[in-house]
Amino acid sequence: MARMPNSLMKTFALKGNLLYTPGPSCFESFPGHYLVCEDGHVAGIFDILPARYDGIAVEDTGGALIVPGMTDLHVHAPQYAFRGLGMDMELLDWLRAYTFPEEARYGDMNYAERAYRQFVDDLKRSTATRACIFGTIHAEATLLLMRMLEETGLVAMVGKVNMDANSPDDYVETTADSLAETEAWVRRSLSAFRNVSPILTPRFVPSCSASLMTGLGSLQRKYGLPVQSHLSENPGEVAWVRSLFPDSTCYGAVYDRFGLFGNGGPTVMAHCIYSTDAEMALLRERGVFVAHCPQSNVNLSSGIAPVRKYLENGLSVGLGSDIAGGYSLSGFRAVADAVSVSRLYWRLVDDSCKPLTLPEAFYMATKGGGAFFGRVGSFEAGYEFDALVLDDALWPSLRPLAPEKRLERLVYLGDERCLRQKYVQGRKIFG
Amino acid sequence: MARMPNSLMKTFALKGNLLYTPGPSCFESFPGHYLVCEDGHVAGIFDILPARYDGIAVEDTGGALIVPGMTDLHVHAPQYAFRGLGMDMELLDWLRAYTFPEEARYGDMNYAERAYRQFVDDLKRSTATRACIFGTIHAEATLLLMRMLEETGLVAMVGKVNMDANSPDDYVETTADSLAETEAWVRRSLSAFRNVSPILTPRFVPSCSASLMTGLGSLQRKYGLPVQSHLSENPGEVAWVRSLFPDSTCYGAVYDRFGLFGNGGPTVMAHCIYSTDAEMALLRERGVFVAHCPQSNVNLSSGIAPVRKYLENGLSVGLGSDIAGGYSLSGFRAVADAVSVSRLYWRLVDDSCKPLTLPEAFYMATKGGGAFFGRVGSFEAGYEFDALVLDDALWPSLRPLAPEKRLERLVYLGDERCLRQKYVQGRKIFG
Repeated sequence: MARMPNSLMKTFALKGNLLYTPGPSCFESFPGHYLVCEDGHVAGIFDILPARYDGIAVEDTGGALIVPGMTDLHVHAPQYAFRGLGMDMELLDWLRAYTFPEEARYGDMNYAERAYRQFVDDLKRSTATRACIFGTIHAEATLLLMRMLEETGLVAMVGKVNMDANSPDDYVETTADSLAETEAWVRRSLSAFRNVSPILTPRFVPSCSASLMTGLGSLQRKYGLPVQSHLSENPGEVAWVRSLFPDSTCYGAVYDRFGLFGNGGPTVMAHCIYSTDAEMALLRERGVFVAHCPQSNVNLSSGIAPVRKYLENGLSVGLGSDIAGGYSLSGFRAVADAVSVSRLYWRLVDDSCKPLTLPEAFYMATKGGGAFFGRVGSFEAGYEFDALVLDDALWPSLRPLAPEKRLERLVYLGDERCLRQKYVQGRKIFG
Repeated sequence: MARMPNSLMKTFALKGNLLYTPGPSCFESFPGHYLVCEDGHVAGIFDILPARYDGIAVEDTGGALIVPGMTDLHVHAPQYAFRGLGMDMELLDWLRAYTFPEEARYGDMNYAERAYRQFVDDLKRSTATRACIFGTIHAEATLLLMRMLEETGLVAMVGKVNMDANSPDDYVETTADSLAETEAWVRRSLSAFRNVSPILTPRFVPSCSASLMTGLGSLQRKYGLPVQSHLSENPGEVAWVRSLFPDSTCYGAVYDRFGLFGNGGPTVMAHCIYSTDAEMALLRERGVFVAHCPQSNVNLSSGIAPVRKYLENGLSVGLGSDIAGGYSLSGFRAVADAVSVSRLYWRLVDDSCKPLTLPEAFYMATKGGGAFFGRVGSFEAGYEFDALVLDDALWPSLRPLAPEKRLERLVYLGDERCLRQKYVQGRKIFG
């Protein structure tokens, strides 16, 4: 669809109960305030509109809550069709039994179109305004997914997956094909879309040969691409990586030696449940983002990531749905689950790791993960204008609740029915 | 409302995809079968209706799933108004900060009526056909709750709470008043309702003096009442009970010495996270039911109950929402959470305790907890006809799914929108 450049976008304001987390420690709340959008960015928050905004369009959302858009920092689009099914195994068995056979279907473009339609429609109606998305090994289907996402107005990084080792016969590439098709896909997709861009996506170390990762490192440098993958999710997986690369100090160091660990482009690694101190240091040193996926980590019996330690050590942490290890696209649910598992970590694993607070988890879902996309996930001036207008009328309260309390209830009780409008980069894409 | 006795109810059949768990090991599935109701009980499951049922009413549910009604074995009605709020503390602080002040409001019948209306309406639309419900210390408000529940057609045991110790000044009873009002309430409620009956409800050991528990034990014997309370939920609570009754071998033994632990009437104890081997033995010996409340146990950072051990030791276990330690009335969610926390227990606490399977958790939600009400929670012949007709059209699948798989998806993705009809004792009470 044709779109005007940001510089021609009209200035406008949303009026409502504004709530966001400039830092992880607490909510900032501006009840009944104006949130002004200029050129697709937040111009400011005002109790009374300044004279310079006389005549701009104002949308009064009434009693609604307005919060920053959320970032889903780790999600597998081709697994959406079997979400809520088959989570009765650990990671490696689950991949072989359910995931690889499903992903192999995306060589069929008819299937890909039908399945990606469900994912894309539901992502549009979700709390996410941004997402880092895994496709399959199929370049054509991945381009289709990118085109469909572009039409939504969401901002997304999407990866064609690379797999040339330890993979099923019907779902694997040769090293040469994987590299050639990835480069061709990168060239086709780099400038084809306004909102959607390619991200290098080696599936995980065990499914990538050293040659493949070497080649991907070259592509990273040649095109300045971001990178996404998995890290230290499951004890069996970690042991396997150690046996494949016995001279690496940690799992992350394997990606690092091939230039795929924040050495060039921004990098996000999902899970990081079993990261050693050395790996945590490397994550920090390289500025690699951690995509914390609490629901998936429970479903696949993986464990609980020590997120409190990561925050205390200055790592960048966001939240991921990890469909279909996770079954819910909802950012509300990711926030609730992040808090929940942190409580169990405190109780069962290490009582020096205080449970996450609600503002901390909400910060990870918004500004924490949003930082992977730049100045995203906050209502501070200069941030991109990503906003959710939320309705909690489904749960009438017997007494007035402060905006923070209303948001807390939405985190625990809310679902896609609560989304009234969604704005991305100043454009209304839903509602 | 006037109701005909069961013996005059018309025989009828539901046709659809029947699914239930006669035991915890697996689902029994009868796609496109007839479930016949006679005199409020299951008469049988039939592929083709036998000639003796010629002419009975048949409701064809089309592609819907039909499963047994669920039992919410532990829920606090007066906490419903603040569900999804204030779960940032452990049990004892949470009781003082949020729970007692809220429950104290139910001395005001206007407030009680407004608040219980929300709870009762939502319980009617939930997956529960049966529930064990805590009220407050107020007999009048508890009777109101019972009247409102009676109108729904749900079957419930409801307790006026007893508290004469270690309680706030504005939410406490004298021992004498507590016993006198409880007996008066029992006498008024014992024969007043068709579907709703009283259950003795000492809040928990710390809020009940020895005199009060002695008196409640007498009432139990005099009226043959069932009993519900809390047991071994939180380390601080368990330590407190030990300091109050240092000569008891375990927390449960305190209830037991007062005749409130399955010695007479059927008894259900919520949580049982920190039950010792001695307590587990006493639970088994007395036939006391365990109400496993996984969501609440996470929210209040209580821990994870070793449910696998309880099942292996032959204890009776059902599931509870424990509103408002838990925030969801949904039995789907309770099943999902029971499976989830069992995975973390296996991973983080004791890898000899295998994670619960979906049929095991579903069994607990239906036949396991239903057994507290008799022959309830199964489609075996002779069981009371409690049934849910479920619709999963909100989540179209790209391929046909077996009924077990559809139920699995409902457990993870479903909410109150999926309930199309609800039958209790053969009566349609919803849809």
